[in-house]
Amino acid sequence: MNAPAHVPVDPRFAHRVRESFGRQKAMALIGASLTAVGPGAAEVSLPFRADLTQQKGFIHGGIVGMIADTACGYAAYSLMPASASLVTVEYKINILSPATRSLVARGEVVKSGRSLTVARAEVYADDGKHVASMQQTLMMLADTPDRPE
Amino acid sequence: MNAPAHVPVDPRFAHRVRESFGRQKAMALIGASLTAVGPGAAEVSLPFRADLTQQKGFIHGGIVGMIADTACGYAAYSLMPASASLVTVEYKINILSPATRSLVARGEVVKSGRSLTVARAEVYADDGKHVASMQQTLMMLADTPDRPE
Amino acid sequence: MNAPAHVPVDPRFAHRVRESFGRQKAMALIGASLTAVGPGAAEVSLPFRADLTQQKGFIHGGIVGMIADTACGYAAYSLMPASASLVTVEYKINILSPATRSLVARGEVVKSGRSLTVARAEVYADDGKHVASMQQTLMMLADTPDRPE
Amino acid sequence: MNAPAHVPVDPRFAHRVRESFGRQKAMALIGASLTAVGPGAAEVSLPFRADLTQQKGFIHGGIVGMIADTACGYAAYSLMPASASLVTVEYKINILSPATRSLVARGEVVKSGRSLTVARAEVYADDGKHVASMQQTLMMLADTPDRPE
Repeated sequence: MNAPAHVPVDPRFAHRVRESFGRQKAMALIGASLTAVGPGAAEVSLPFRADLTQQKGFIHGGIVGMIADTACGYAAYSLMPASASLVTVEYKINILSPATRSLVARGEVVKSGRSLTVARAEVYADDGKHVASMQQTLMMLADTPDRPE
Repeated sequence: MNAPAHVPVDPRFAHRVRESFGRQKAMALIGASLTAVGPGAAEVSLPFRADLTQQKGFIHGGIVGMIADTACGYAAYSLMPASASLVTVEYKINILSPATRSLVARGEVVKSGRSLTVARAEVYADDGKHVASMQQTLMMLADTPDRPE
Repeated sequence: MNAPAHVPVDPRFAHRVRESFGRQKAMALIGASLTAVGPGAAEVSLPFRADLTQQKGFIHGGIVGMIADTACGYAAYSLMPASASLVTVEYKINILSPATRSLVARGEVVKSGRSLTVARAEVYADDGKHVASMQQTLMMLADTPDRPE
Repeated sequence: MNAPAHVPVDPRFAHRVRESFGRQKAMALIGASLTAVGPGAAEVSLPFRADLTQQKGFIHGGIVGMIADTACGYAAYSLMPASASLVTVEYKINILSPATRSLVARGEVVKSGRSLTVARAEVYADDGKHVASMQQTLMMLADTPDRPE
């Protein structure tokens, strides 16, 4: 995508991303973990579990969306100042293949603007199959804590 | 939306939808239930639980997406022949307000074509707040079982 | 959609919308006109012309997108203060039927927030066929002129 | 995106793509041309013209969508058998920057399935600015002519 290298304004961004992810109880519920963080990039991994499936035995499309959403969100959050928080404005996801195995979602920032960030995530299965592609818009809330108010 | 009334080809559609929903382990995991089914319409309800939240204490945007995705999917599935199954091609969701309370997602079919169906869902909180809007594309798989193969 | 009635902050909103539309040279190029304006609503009409078509003789999907985009945009703009302008953040459109006839795109606001507005448009052919559905996000730019700077 | 190399089933794909594009009267209307074709890839170029603009003097977001839609469509079409045609199911586009100059839209196939193809396009201005990102779904119509019936 020829994206320019992203330069985080907060040098402690990786710590901040990991700490925020750790407070996402929904990620614990589904067994997802944050397996990589970089400037404008984040990776969320999800081991296969039967209780994540839909009626045909595939990981639920909404759960595929959850990890892609989270990977995009933390990719964007890595570039924010420490005093800001982020909200998801919207996302769009194409399911490319049934998710029958453990997954990894890799998010990266496409464009980081003053208030809006656009990010993408690709979801792959552990056999290399491309499972989903997301495109997402996020909005920075300046001087807003990233925790319950 | 001036949508024409939908006429299901399978008179036992409501039974079929409820039975399929009952096999979605991911819905049990998050505590969601199917609270209404009609021709081209389905409603999924989700009580608030702390383990569904993200870092700010709101229900995770991906979980909002899960119930909207499921409401759209069963709205579409209600109009399918009993011998078919459905896959989600893609969806797009706008998060309109933080989800801080119990939610209901109401899905309805916009257009039911030969192989593709377009559906929408609105997600509301139990205080009436409009939380999210989804637009989704699904594809019918003719003569394919709606269960693990 | 049970949307609440929208109350425009600028009582002269209809004049402002018509005047802004009149400066869209791209609408003149394709022969589109603004045929209705209301609070949180706008309608754009497009007579069929052979030079709007793609390789199969249908109105180009991108032109269907243009009128839906514009209908959403002016639906949103009708609710803005006179001193603001708007930019399109993103949109998603489903093409439901081939566009073989004159079209009308009806946009309406789903949620008008402090900086972001979500709108939808439906596109119909003049024989009543439902041609497309759009969901769009727009951002208000406060105190920014709605004309070339 | 680590996309695998695409192998076209029709060795004369480039000729077929150029010939089909040449029949898109809407592309002639806006002055767009097809400037590159490859297996699973297509590029559409659009010189800046005042009659393509919206009220602020930027190229209309819907016209940005038109060229991105067309670049995705021909990227997908390049991989189809000569006997098939294609329809756009849906697309989603983020506008990243105002389009104030000549544009190029580069489309590429993300996944080419049996009936559905997912493609993406990036739109750049001639000063290198990233103007838009699209994600699109297309459906192949087997044994259907790519011209008016």
